[in-house]
Amino acid sequence: MGEFELIRRFFATAPCAQGGEGVALGIGDDCALLELPPGEQLAVSTDTLVAGSHFPLQHDPFLLGQRALAVSTSDLAAMGATPIGFTLALTLPDADETWLRRFADGLQRMAAQCRMTLLGGDTTRGPLTLGMTVFGRVPKGLALTRAGARPGDLLCVGGSLGDGAGALPLVLGERPADGEAAEYLLARYWQPQPQLALGQALRGRATAALDISDGLLADCGHIAQASGVALCIERARLPLSAALHERLPADEALRCALSGGDDYRLAFTLPASERAALQTEFPEMAVIGRVEAGEGVHLYDEQGRELALAARGYQHFG
Amino acid sequence: MGEFELIRRFFATAPCAQGGEGVALGIGDDCALLELPPGEQLAVSTDTLVAGSHFPLQHDPFLLGQRALAVSTSDLAAMGATPIGFTLALTLPDADETWLRRFADGLQRMAAQCRMTLLGGDTTRGPLTLGMTVFGRVPKGLALTRAGARPGDLLCVGGSLGDGAGALPLVLGERPADGEAAEYLLARYWQPQPQLALGQALRGRATAALDISDGLLADCGHIAQASGVALCIERARLPLSAALHERLPADEALRCALSGGDDYRLAFTLPASERAALQTEFPEMAVIGRVEAGEGVHLYDEQGRELALAARGYQHFG
Repeated sequence: MGEFELIRRFFATAPCAQGGEGVALGIGDDCALLELPPGEQLAVSTDTLVAGSHFPLQHDPFLLGQRALAVSTSDLAAMGATPIGFTLALTLPDADETWLRRFADGLQRMAAQCRMTLLGGDTTRGPLTLGMTVFGRVPKGLALTRAGARPGDLLCVGGSLGDGAGALPLVLGERPADGEAAEYLLARYWQPQPQLALGQALRGRATAALDISDGLLADCGHIAQASGVALCIERARLPLSAALHERLPADEALRCALSGGDDYRLAFTLPASERAALQTEFPEMAVIGRVEAGEGVHLYDEQGRELALAARGYQHFG
Repeated sequence: MGEFELIRRFFATAPCAQGGEGVALGIGDDCALLELPPGEQLAVSTDTLVAGSHFPLQHDPFLLGQRALAVSTSDLAAMGATPIGFTLALTLPDADETWLRRFADGLQRMAAQCRMTLLGGDTTRGPLTLGMTVFGRVPKGLALTRAGARPGDLLCVGGSLGDGAGALPLVLGERPADGEAAEYLLARYWQPQPQLALGQALRGRATAALDISDGLLADCGHIAQASGVALCIERARLPLSAALHERLPADEALRCALSGGDDYRLAFTLPASERAALQTEFPEMAVIGRVEAGEGVHLYDEQGRELALAARGYQHFG
């Protein structure tokens, strides 16, 4: 099976490659062509997933396909963008047809869920690496950046924290993965749901937003730095799932919530007046602290005492 | 040096990352934001370059940075697009500062030449792999696709063929790289010039176009298939550089021109009435054959006899 045949069989003929709104020319030429409605901007983000670093060498390719697209699309959610499509740069050690079929099916599943068109890409031989570039559209002036948080705003997250990091020992087979709690955690790792509806609802309401990919503390640090403010987190308010509590000792669960990087929940700052309506619409959302004048990220215990922060988020080349 | 520091030092602070026309928000947030003038479409293409496959493990990182962006930008030229910017997905075995400085400088050189903004990307640890996604704009309805060639059109290329493939033994150190001819060939391999001006001049004139990345025969096959026509190439008309003639026996030079994939020249089909004006503007352009009714790619010798085609273009997983 040559490169062109591989692209045709597994990708160009997939339902998600047959075009969609905003796609003037899809897969198969030197470039894809996108169109934007008047008054909208194009949001673009690129992510790389390397086997053995971002996902285990032993994996279900269907789940990998789902997860790869979800992780990248989460960046569109963080900007408040509506997804259009994506390109895939797939580097493979060999053309294993069983792997390709399941991977393409997983990709298709998430693409259909997020209404995204596969626009093109590149297939090359080498160590297993996935490069995803995602495209969305957002009304001009309404994109959510990291730079607008103001003292007095509430600091919020889109749902439970630490599940992805808590799932890692199960994903790697280091702990037994039986029972409902394990099932929940594994689903949170392999099928993170990009918070697209929440991101779009935050347009014109949130003052800053991002998706938590490096860990809550590190990512809050990005908002603090870009906005020139301090973010104050109350430990007691961190939303931890029942499953995480069940599977991990309290201190380990807390470490996952603060420094784990695989949740792809949104973190955002919000004027207090916006809270009630949003909370009704998104009951999983939680207020975890507040924005203050100053700099950096601060963590407080139940008595209001500041805690020392040792564990920062994940960095490559750290 | 952590990941964020690496991005800041070598990429986010580079002149090419400081924004440009069409860039509403550049590097540093979850997404970059692009704007399009009314009536224009966005052209997008993704390429992956794997060390040891697309470029030698032993290389000058400055030249690699130049070449990686040039190769990807060539896809914009093939659509007749005006470049806007690019994202970079950089996978590195380690954070070697000397390598990074030279690579970033090479990238900067080509970005400045093509007027492109570095919009964002991702830096991860792993086997050396470069993922480039390039963005350009093109007036609606004027993008050059592969699908419009008509019987009677001329088949043209943007300049000499086979130089990149002819340079490969020099690039790999298999043959001595001394003398002017070697210098010319090495420059053609490491600093291919995306034919942006030619591509833009072909808008509304050429009926089909692409850039030659898989080899002339394979890429003409793509036009023939997409357009539903036959492409007929006259061997005597293939433009071979003096350097290629000097360094290689005639049959080997011809093989490079027909099947080599590293030239990044445009191939296009053109109504005969457009030829004269275009030839004046782009003297390097050459007519190498014609479009006929039928299918496939055909090669003819000096006596008009059809030659058997054994050597096809390069494919991964071939």
